[in-house]
Amino acid sequence: MTENKLITPRKLKGFWELMPKEQMLFSSLLQKIEKVFQDNCFLPLDTPVLEYSDALLAKSGGETDKQVFRFSKGDADMCMRYDLTVPLARFVSMHKTELCFPFKRYQIGKVYRGERPQKGRFREFYQCDADIIGDGQLSLVADAECINLFEKCFDALSLPVEIKVSNRKIISGFIEQIGKTDKSTEIFIVLDKLDKISIEDALNELQEIGLSKRESEKIAKLTQISGKIEEISKELRDFCQNSTFQNGLDELLEVDKYLKSFGCTSVTYSLGVIRGHNYYTGTVFEGFLKDSKVAVGGGGRFENLCSYFSAQKMPGVGMSVGVTRLFDLLLQESYFDINCVTETELGVVNFDETLPQALEVVQKLRKLGVKADCLYESKTFKGKLKEANKRQLNYVLFVGENEIESNLFTLKNMQDGSQESLSLSQIAEKFEKIRKNI
Amino acid sequence: MTENKLITPRKLKGFWELMPKEQMLFSSLLQKIEKVFQDNCFLPLDTPVLEYSDALLAKSGGETDKQVFRFSKGDADMCMRYDLTVPLARFVSMHKTELCFPFKRYQIGKVYRGERPQKGRFREFYQCDADIIGDGQLSLVADAECINLFEKCFDALSLPVEIKVSNRKIISGFIEQIGKTDKSTEIFIVLDKLDKISIEDALNELQEIGLSKRESEKIAKLTQISGKIEEISKELRDFCQNSTFQNGLDELLEVDKYLKSFGCTSVTYSLGVIRGHNYYTGTVFEGFLKDSKVAVGGGGRFENLCSYFSAQKMPGVGMSVGVTRLFDLLLQESYFDINCVTETELGVVNFDETLPQALEVVQKLRKLGVKADCLYESKTFKGKLKEANKRQLNYVLFVGENEIESNLFTLKNMQDGSQESLSLSQIAEKFEKIRKNI
Repeated sequence: MTENKLITPRKLKGFWELMPKEQMLFSSLLQKIEKVFQDNCFLPLDTPVLEYSDALLAKSGGETDKQVFRFSKGDADMCMRYDLTVPLARFVSMHKTELCFPFKRYQIGKVYRGERPQKGRFREFYQCDADIIGDGQLSLVADAECINLFEKCFDALSLPVEIKVSNRKIISGFIEQIGKTDKSTEIFIVLDKLDKISIEDALNELQEIGLSKRESEKIAKLTQISGKIEEISKELRDFCQNSTFQNGLDELLEVDKYLKSFGCTSVTYSLGVIRGHNYYTGTVFEGFLKDSKVAVGGGGRFENLCSYFSAQKMPGVGMSVGVTRLFDLLLQESYFDINCVTETELGVVNFDETLPQALEVVQKLRKLGVKADCLYESKTFKGKLKEANKRQLNYVLFVGENEIESNLFTLKNMQDGSQESLSLSQIAEKFEKIRKNI
Repeated sequence: MTENKLITPRKLKGFWELMPKEQMLFSSLLQKIEKVFQDNCFLPLDTPVLEYSDALLAKSGGETDKQVFRFSKGDADMCMRYDLTVPLARFVSMHKTELCFPFKRYQIGKVYRGERPQKGRFREFYQCDADIIGDGQLSLVADAECINLFEKCFDALSLPVEIKVSNRKIISGFIEQIGKTDKSTEIFIVLDKLDKISIEDALNELQEIGLSKRESEKIAKLTQISGKIEEISKELRDFCQNSTFQNGLDELLEVDKYLKSFGCTSVTYSLGVIRGHNYYTGTVFEGFLKDSKVAVGGGGRFENLCSYFSAQKMPGVGMSVGVTRLFDLLLQESYFDINCVTETELGVVNFDETLPQALEVVQKLRKLGVKADCLYESKTFKGKLKEANKRQLNYVLFVGENEIESNLFTLKNMQDGSQESLSLSQIAEKFEKIRKNI
């Protein structure tokens, strides 16, 4: 036997890793979202974590290039995906003829960003994306469907959400009207920061870009318009006569009509919703936990998903729940009671001579649907009860020789110390009731 | 608008990617396995895909180093994980004081190997691992539990499996007896190849290592011993008097006793099971689809999970289902009927003027548990039916003005063309029955 030099076990900085009971909660959260996607007829996709660099970075600006985990092996230059949208575009372009359109797909997976770790930002995190892709065209019903789907995800999590909706064409139209279309990206970057910087700073930045004081004020005023559809449409109708602007407003009205058919209740309208990404071209929306300013996801319409892969136009609309950030927030706010989470409902206590029978009992209980586990590792009776306490088990079951003979087993409630003598099927019934009450 | 130079959409070679309906099948397979892990009181873990290179490669020989995806970013030298065991060792070492032992954890996740792509081998694939880790010691019950868990995974998938079990100490003891412990690794490498090379070649290789002809023949004969526990124990009892050898046999007998308590039915014993990895030190097992020679996973006992991170001994035993390979095999053998897989049970056909009401109907049906989807994109009635056919929908529902007034909707069976007029709750009942029949 050689002596090993020991390595200090470390996790990479900025990488997220949960303890097992937290993981149980997180997994159940992902499962609930996945069920919503499935119930709404979205198809699953699970693209590789790695993609060719040319494909992955085609669409991105320099910012993404810097943030991406990129490397070569053999003659392949590859990157870890930084979102799930570019892989979707690659997949749809490759399999266009085999897919049915509108193509409704969801993907729940990890994405990677090599940015400097900071609070609430991770280098590896989950995205829960659902998108609807059209072939050449796509009805505005799809926009409403994605907003509705987003709402349903939070309903399924029993988390109250507020969804703010806008349409980028409205502001684009105004920019067109004042003849600043060439400065459009810079203007949107400033407007996107309005929740972080003061209005004075924003006005200064807009003037630096080349807008007049009056134009800057008017566009800032535009982003502050919010409320119910009737209120904002009244305010917007005469704000600007540009056709792109009016088209954006009409789209917003149409989407609102479909949202009403879907029975959406969490939506308000706010022209302040920009959604940084350049590729959004119409509807945009952002979700917030009610009474909190924390954004928990959003989405929008893009004119052409596959522009870097195909000459054919593939419009789409999507939604994404920022589920790592959301869960991290809920953990910090002690939203969950970790102590109530248990993988084991019942610890089975054997005695030296009854180990084989105790294992049989465990097996029978599992078949009856009880999550039972034999405490075989601790050698003494006292040790087994200590193990049960450390594992926070609420119940233990004694399997001694008398119990085996009578087929009645002593169930002990570890919280109040009470005991009762039950058959295995009675135990199964009892746990079914316990589960229903919780 | 600038013209983009188009990029040919390509997937990286050797990376696995399923079409959506295949993915639905694969996801359901993973879910079934996960449920088995949960029902057997294993805790989930989801470690990062990336780890520090020093930690990940500490344990590996040069072979792994070559196969790993490794790169640097900032001052971090990192690797994509090539299995789920080293990350488990890193996690357990970091959180030893917070965990309860035996620590039963499962992890289902992708791992990465930069090896040359070949049939049935992928550079990114899923592993479904479950391990039981002890603190200082771990009962042989855990070995039986992992074998039993492996069997249960295949039961849950309704796939008949044969599990071949051995104990490495038996062959190690024989090697000890003939005084070749220093050549142990090389001998095991040859023995591990016995399903691929001829017995003559193996005997030659063993003699090249330094075994006599007689020793080579005797060790080869040892690996051919297989059968029920009573049969092999009789044959082995007098094969060799070395204490390691006898200890291995005793362990095998004890594990068999627990397997009988668990009610395992798929186990036979075979000394030919080696399980390449060096770190197995006791029980080893391998699973095969019945009547096929294809290995679909396995596992075994290791003496010390955390030897590279900690001076304290952490013995463990684990199992792993090679789920990507398994699914790939089932797909190739047309085990699934892809045409029967559908994400949508019912296509809802609207008319121009009834779109809002059709969306309401879809929403109501989804609340009633029916996977309904509105065919809003196709503009004509004929187009909608064509879309339904392309999507292989078995049923469509017409939402016209008469239907809306009467609250009775025409349900059309797309396979036999039959139609009936039903209320929404009748439709929900009908689909509940359809689901139960399939």
